Amino acid sequence: MAGMIEPIQRMVNALSSLPGIGAKSAQRLAYHIVSLPQDEVRELAAALWQGRKAIRYCAVCGNYTAGERCDICEQEERHNGQICVVRDPRDVAAMERMHEYRGLYHVLHGTLSPMDGVGPDDIRIRELLARLQDGTVTEVILATNPDIEGEATATYIARLIKPLGIRVTRIAHGVPVGADLEYADEVTLSKAMEGRREI
Amino acid sequence: MAGMIEPIQRMVNALSSLPGIGAKSAQRLAYHIVSLPQDEVRELAAALWQGRKAIRYCAVCGNYTAGERCDICEQEERHNGQICVVRDPRDVAAMERMHEYRGLYHVLHGTLSPMDGVGPDDIRIRELLARLQDGTVTEVILATNPDIEGEATATYIARLIKPLGIRVTRIAHGVPVGADLEYADEVTLSKAMEGRREI
Repeated sequence: MAGMIEPIQRMVNALSSLPGIGAKSAQRLAYHIVSLPQDEVRELAAALWQGRKAIRYCAVCGNYTAGERCDICEQEERHNGQICVVRDPRDVAAMERMHEYRGLYHVLHGTLSPMDGVGPDDIRIRELLARLQDGTVTEVILATNPDIEGEATATYIARLIKPLGIRVTRIAHGVPVGADLEYADEVTLSKAMEGRREI
Repeated sequence: MAGMIEPIQRMVNALSSLPGIGAKSAQRLAYHIVSLPQDEVRELAAALWQGRKAIRYCAVCGNYTAGERCDICEQEERHNGQICVVRDPRDVAAMERMHEYRGLYHVLHGTLSPMDGVGPDDIRIRELLARLQDGTVTEVILATNPDIEGEATATYIARLIKPLGIRVTRIAHGVPVGADLEYADEVTLSKAMEGRREI
């Protein structure tokens, strides 16, 4: 772009690769960042890079954690008889915002999508089944998104788990069909949880 | 926030300090960044921090530069008899997008604002006067924003420069009053430049 020097252009390129940030807002952000004191920019860059480096998957549930096991798996007061299965760590955060569910989670890190070549071995289904072996878990709540892939994934997992004699439920369609779990408000999520049914 | 671990919370805090990024989009961006390959996040962080570190003010005009003098001051084909005075480097970028002005710039890095304690010595007015000493410059175009502070700054600078026998012009109010120069489209900026008048 005219009148833009290389370091700023590089900032603009990097920022506009982020979701929801177009060329114009990337440019506005870049000029803002250049106008900040160096210390503040160092803190911003460090927060992003150090944060990314610090984070890995919880060895138990696949949620994001800075340690070996995530905050939720570490909480002794959680009911370990329930596992709520979600697509992404951000869905765990969404569920936790409703402050009602007291069980554990399992993060699949994806949903089945034959069109995109994502099969059962590409998401954390095997890890889920492993968690069900010792008989502690009595209910698996399938909370994948209420869209085509989320439904297909829920159905697939339900078929695998039911033969084990474990109760398998699906959150109710209180979440508007086609929408993202992440954007649902606490009340809707709470209703969805309450109205869950066996599948 | 519930269910959000410290490294992610730190990302959210850093991101939500940026203009136009609220709590919800900061959270969305943070989770997106955590889901990226480490290499991409390193590149993003480096682009911001290295970029900020690389940039300083052009020794001549105050525009952003990675070197001693900015790209525009380095261009030999620019008319050195004209100086267009703007508030911010981003206004230089806005003016350059119209591809019509061929003179030089002077970046004030602010506008007079007695209410905020910004006086003539706090913006680069002295540096502008110094550039007018050798008689090369025959016209100073005042392109500060058409808002109260921008107008006051233009009037103040005009009073200082007119006694030197240099033509002082103000860009026309083609830019909507109260708006930011940065958001003006190329045609509006071009009209504003064309209709400039002596003040």
